[in-house]
Amino acid sequence: MTSSSFDVAVAGGGAIGLACAWRATQRGLSTIVLDSGDPAAWQAAAGMLAPVTESQFGERELLELNLRGARGFEAFCAELAEASGADPGHRATGTLAVARDRDDAEALERLLAFRRELGLEVERLRPSQARRAEPALAPTVRLALDVPGDHSVDPRRLVAALATAFERAGGTLRRARAAALTPDGLRLDDGDTISAEQVVLATGAAQIHLPEDARVPVRPVKGQILRLRDPRGPGLVERTIRGLDAYLVPRADGGYVLGATMEERGWDTAPTAGGVYELLRDMSELVPGVLELEIEELRAGLRPATPDNLPAIGPGALDGLIWATGHYRNGIVLAPITAELVAGTLTGEPLPEWAAHADPRRFATAKVHA
Amino acid sequence: MTSSSFDVAVAGGGAIGLACAWRATQRGLSTIVLDSGDPAAWQAAAGMLAPVTESQFGERELLELNLRGARGFEAFCAELAEASGADPGHRATGTLAVARDRDDAEALERLLAFRRELGLEVERLRPSQARRAEPALAPTVRLALDVPGDHSVDPRRLVAALATAFERAGGTLRRARAAALTPDGLRLDDGDTISAEQVVLATGAAQIHLPEDARVPVRPVKGQILRLRDPRGPGLVERTIRGLDAYLVPRADGGYVLGATMEERGWDTAPTAGGVYELLRDMSELVPGVLELEIEELRAGLRPATPDNLPAIGPGALDGLIWATGHYRNGIVLAPITAELVAGTLTGEPLPEWAAHADPRRFATAKVHA
Repeated sequence: MTSSSFDVAVAGGGAIGLACAWRATQRGLSTIVLDSGDPAAWQAAAGMLAPVTESQFGERELLELNLRGARGFEAFCAELAEASGADPGHRATGTLAVARDRDDAEALERLLAFRRELGLEVERLRPSQARRAEPALAPTVRLALDVPGDHSVDPRRLVAALATAFERAGGTLRRARAAALTPDGLRLDDGDTISAEQVVLATGAAQIHLPEDARVPVRPVKGQILRLRDPRGPGLVERTIRGLDAYLVPRADGGYVLGATMEERGWDTAPTAGGVYELLRDMSELVPGVLELEIEELRAGLRPATPDNLPAIGPGALDGLIWATGHYRNGIVLAPITAELVAGTLTGEPLPEWAAHADPRRFATAKVHA
Repeated sequence: MTSSSFDVAVAGGGAIGLACAWRATQRGLSTIVLDSGDPAAWQAAAGMLAPVTESQFGERELLELNLRGARGFEAFCAELAEASGADPGHRATGTLAVARDRDDAEALERLLAFRRELGLEVERLRPSQARRAEPALAPTVRLALDVPGDHSVDPRRLVAALATAFERAGGTLRRARAAALTPDGLRLDDGDTISAEQVVLATGAAQIHLPEDARVPVRPVKGQILRLRDPRGPGLVERTIRGLDAYLVPRADGGYVLGATMEERGWDTAPTAGGVYELLRDMSELVPGVLELEIEELRAGLRPATPDNLPAIGPGALDGLIWATGHYRNGIVLAPITAELVAGTLTGEPLPEWAAHADPRRFATAKVHA
């Protein structure tokens, strides 16, 4: 058993953990990231940067966070590409939200009104206009909303670039699972200990051992995706295509991600016949050509969801423990601003006003406040 | 480059090649099997031993071969289990052919008449009877045929047991690809040569270099399957369930194979969204609970098809070269009798009358006969 010492230890080597760690090293903090190597949410993430098409009634605080996250994403990727020498896979080709029938169209009209009321950039397209923009759409499509500002990123490229940038900045990336918090830092599964002044918890739906009343309540929400490939190369669709029940996100190289189910099934990450069937059925009704694609991979990930669907970012009930979890459907789009907030917290800055809704202390029990 | 010498060299380490080689060693012939390690048809085979439900109008010769193959299969597996110490996964739980709608039911009635005319054991079940036998069947099922004699085997267990039995009998199994026939035997991809008195070609849809007019014409017919698993264990269905477009073969341990597409797409073995979607759609209309299963694996294999859908078993146009290919949809059920025929040929026996339809020389050109 060995022990090593850092300013900051980050539990979790996904998009959130690595982004936080990269920003921490940039602020001069010696930082280690503990990556369990377990299947991770980012591996099943489509990478939609889509605050407008993701916006739902009654989630204004989340919408504001997502808009802020999306706004700075392209600049974040440019900086990351420079720092890592790798392409994070940002694509500014926009999103079409598509209705396949009258019911879908009515739901889309209501969302359109809601989004316009919020001042979001959305254009209503008639079916013929939608099919001019994306000829692969089914002739039966009833309505589409064009959202040019809803972009995408490739989470696998993003995470690879973050790991490189973090290590180039002097950070330490270690394949080990954080098992428990200690007074000095973290104890690892293999018995080693990491001494750290501050610990960042970015383990997604996975949990480490903590006192009951110091926890942030996070539950896993399973999402299944298919990774598809067009052997003829890119071009089936240019934009992300969103139906009410499925979306298709194109990559630049002819790859696609078709997602995603939403299932509350505990820690189960097995792809199921029903999940795959429904995704293929729902998307093939919008883009029939999706059935011509090759299946490269089936995968399920676990989204970390809090009771109010908002993330937990910042200090919690325990001194020196900083939360960066609970990002639910928004872990990729929120990674850069989460990293900014966490790096600020690590260097003693107070959380800005706009991040108050993500304050982890909203889940603290009366006992902890007493 | 090295050279080694055997009585018999078998190109192809699948079910056919290994069964032939095992039988050859049992007859005292020193035998080597060259297994390319490439994706193989048996890996995507469901293992139906189903001459009755597979029987089609106008394929009486194939039906006769399949009946003969199925008849001896259980005894073959018993002998193989004894010789290998491994369970080849034979299951005698029978098959239900199921019609989901009126059109299917009419097609099934015609097949029933045809099968009865041939004296095959088939019982007509009303929907209520079918659902008593298999409660997982959809309430909408229109008709079912009960075929208790159509069994199944697990091809992966079968091939593993054959490899063990062959090696225990003194055979040599080598991971190498046969590249070309030579006057003395075979030349391998790695440059080595195998000297052999006789060569058996059991490479399925894959081909080795031969003179044009000595070849048996075999084309690849792609079949996609899903390997599924019920996390609650076995019992969703006991029998193989056959629709007109898909079948579901249960294993004893809660595993299932759902297959299979029939696609003429050359050497392509990529699973496709359309293939997977159609299999899930077609089977979920018969057995809705299939959508609750986990997907363990997607796979496609290439069936070796001849122009008349019959296999090519026995000597061809070249001296010392024996064919064991072209088994199309029937490679598993025909493996034992193919092995008997090939072992007989290797030891100088003439092909029996009943195997005449499988004679490879039916494809020889006039020039070769001259």
